[in-house]
Amino acid sequence: MEIAILGYGVVGSGAYEILNKSGYKVKKVLDIRPHDELGDALTANYDDILNDKDIKIVAEAIGGLEPAHTFVVKALKAGKHVVSSNKHLICEYYDELHDLACKNNVTLRFTSAVGGGIPWLYNLKRTLRGDEVSKIMGIMNGTTNFILDAMITDSRDFGDVLKEAQALGYAEANPSADIDGLDVARKTAISSSIAFDTTVKENDVDIFSLRNITKSDIDYISEKLGKTVRYMGFGVRNDDTISCFVEPVLLSLASLEANVNKNFNIISLFGNSVGRLSFFGQGAGKYPTGHALASDVIDIYNGARETYKLNKSVSVDNDKCERKYYLRANTLPSSDIIDSYECVGSSYYIITNKMKVSAMHSLAKSILESDPLAFFAGIEE
Amino acid sequence: MEIAILGYGVVGSGAYEILNKSGYKVKKVLDIRPHDELGDALTANYDDILNDKDIKIVAEAIGGLEPAHTFVVKALKAGKHVVSSNKHLICEYYDELHDLACKNNVTLRFTSAVGGGIPWLYNLKRTLRGDEVSKIMGIMNGTTNFILDAMITDSRDFGDVLKEAQALGYAEANPSADIDGLDVARKTAISSSIAFDTTVKENDVDIFSLRNITKSDIDYISEKLGKTVRYMGFGVRNDDTISCFVEPVLLSLASLEANVNKNFNIISLFGNSVGRLSFFGQGAGKYPTGHALASDVIDIYNGARETYKLNKSVSVDNDKCERKYYLRANTLPSSDIIDSYECVGSSYYIITNKMKVSAMHSLAKSILESDPLAFFAGIEE
Repeated sequence: MEIAILGYGVVGSGAYEILNKSGYKVKKVLDIRPHDELGDALTANYDDILNDKDIKIVAEAIGGLEPAHTFVVKALKAGKHVVSSNKHLICEYYDELHDLACKNNVTLRFTSAVGGGIPWLYNLKRTLRGDEVSKIMGIMNGTTNFILDAMITDSRDFGDVLKEAQALGYAEANPSADIDGLDVARKTAISSSIAFDTTVKENDVDIFSLRNITKSDIDYISEKLGKTVRYMGFGVRNDDTISCFVEPVLLSLASLEANVNKNFNIISLFGNSVGRLSFFGQGAGKYPTGHALASDVIDIYNGARETYKLNKSVSVDNDKCERKYYLRANTLPSSDIIDSYECVGSSYYIITNKMKVSAMHSLAKSILESDPLAFFAGIEE
Repeated sequence: MEIAILGYGVVGSGAYEILNKSGYKVKKVLDIRPHDELGDALTANYDDILNDKDIKIVAEAIGGLEPAHTFVVKALKAGKHVVSSNKHLICEYYDELHDLACKNNVTLRFTSAVGGGIPWLYNLKRTLRGDEVSKIMGIMNGTTNFILDAMITDSRDFGDVLKEAQALGYAEANPSADIDGLDVARKTAISSSIAFDTTVKENDVDIFSLRNITKSDIDYISEKLGKTVRYMGFGVRNDDTISCFVEPVLLSLASLEANVNKNFNIISLFGNSVGRLSFFGQGAGKYPTGHALASDVIDIYNGARETYKLNKSVSVDNDKCERKYYLRANTLPSSDIIDSYECVGSSYYIITNKMKVSAMHSLAKSILESDPLAFFAGIEE
């Protein structure tokens, strides 16, 4: 049973080193750039992998939709097991790839697509064999956690810390996927799909951006409310639907999340039998994410073949979940949603009554039209 | 492939319910007490299980050394896979049971023996396939964490909280195994055996009891040192040996451990590739621990057969690991070990220089002979 890796970037090269060092030889690596250290293992032609009958496991670490999607579909149709670290691909094509894996009697794994080096999806799946999960939640993006931690610890501005994160390589030149929540939304969608046995798309997830948070928000949340703030994704089981959303969230200082610093991640499940289980670690990086990709490969190499059922019976409905919200705006919203507020300088700092998630996200869109710097955060009880 | 459970106590009955509800039917349960709800599945005669060729997986949840040891040995020799939640058994007989499992080509699993519902040992083993671990550490005992959390949060006395823990069923009538560290020492020994591919016995682990901690220690640690305290086990890889010890430990308020409250547990590994990974959850209880026991059964039922190698080449040497210590005593120790101290009332509160773990544990024994209420804690940097 031979192994191939598609893409020799950060994650692919990390997994390559870890697999080879651990005695799992990688036969072929697909990349269009030269890499002398790979010798004969390197190829720029995918057919060299697809037509090699001895290659039974393909680990995709290219990222993005194309050509990753085409390559993965071809591999599954050729009867090869597939492991992927590609959250965009899995979020977009989970149904299709899951069906193809079932039809071709092969295994599809993507632990490294969510939480980097944290074996989160793997343990979520393992827990579900003997339990039901009522909620998942997590700090799933290291860039935004690094920014918040630095703002809180060193009393710095958002833009200032973002520039440092970009210089350190934690944030992209275009940081929107991180700070506007798409990255977390995809990870929340994939996690919720597994947790609740359905298919959640990124468009199903309501998102508040982190972009508008200011030092004055941090100070108010800390000094007046005695809380701290993190950027998190949530998936919640309602009676017959689920709710999925990404929000900055106010947390007790004594919560685990409040003490997840720098670019670390933590992701939790709440099981009816097992109670709360939380998984903490590096959410990104060559060797952590490479280790998670390699671990899925080793599972399959050693005979793991579980393919998880996909009932697709549960729909996303953010009307069914309620919580209180913090908002900072330059005008007051309708008084019937306000629990309490304070006016400091030209800003209103407002705590709402319990509101439907969907209603608050709609309201936020309309407030942002006239007050584009307003900031919104959920409050985790 | 049929399943049997030995012992229908808290954990055994939890696993029974979870397995049956999840579609993994339990054919026989061994218990000497009557349990009408088990019907024909109940037997008081182990031979009914041992001689049943269809029963391929035996889950031991009796606890203690005998008859658990005799039953498990017989099951392995009869070619049955064994799952156990029994830390005493595994700590005492790991070598023998591991060898028997290898010889008889069956699988031995004991995830639920450490960390209750937390899939700690399972993930530790899974991580090690592609990584080396340099250190493990954890809050592995819910009773002592409940006591410390209540002392810190509500400013209460040790004896007072211990009585409440006993009334709530968290602590035994004889609480020594919890508060004097034997429970954590066994869990540390088992975790270190897996992490470092060797066999650590409970006697290899140096232990400080938690028993002597007072409100004045808590106040001094909090107000003067700005830290908090937890009761933890440690396994550390040195150059060619390992160190294993159980100590109350002073921690930064911003550490994850400082925010593990009530009777929760957290256990961490430090991998060369994956970095720090931490696992948080319920360290005990019918359904959490039952879920962990059931999960090992389901792994084997679904074909998992990994038996981990056991090189036994690494010895325990607590001379090779150094740290600073906090101690409260009624006389000053030799000045060459003191970094700083303060005298309050009739007590000296001392921070030591970096000391060998073995040297501090020897010194503690001699101090306790003349000052039986002295208290010792490591300081985690």
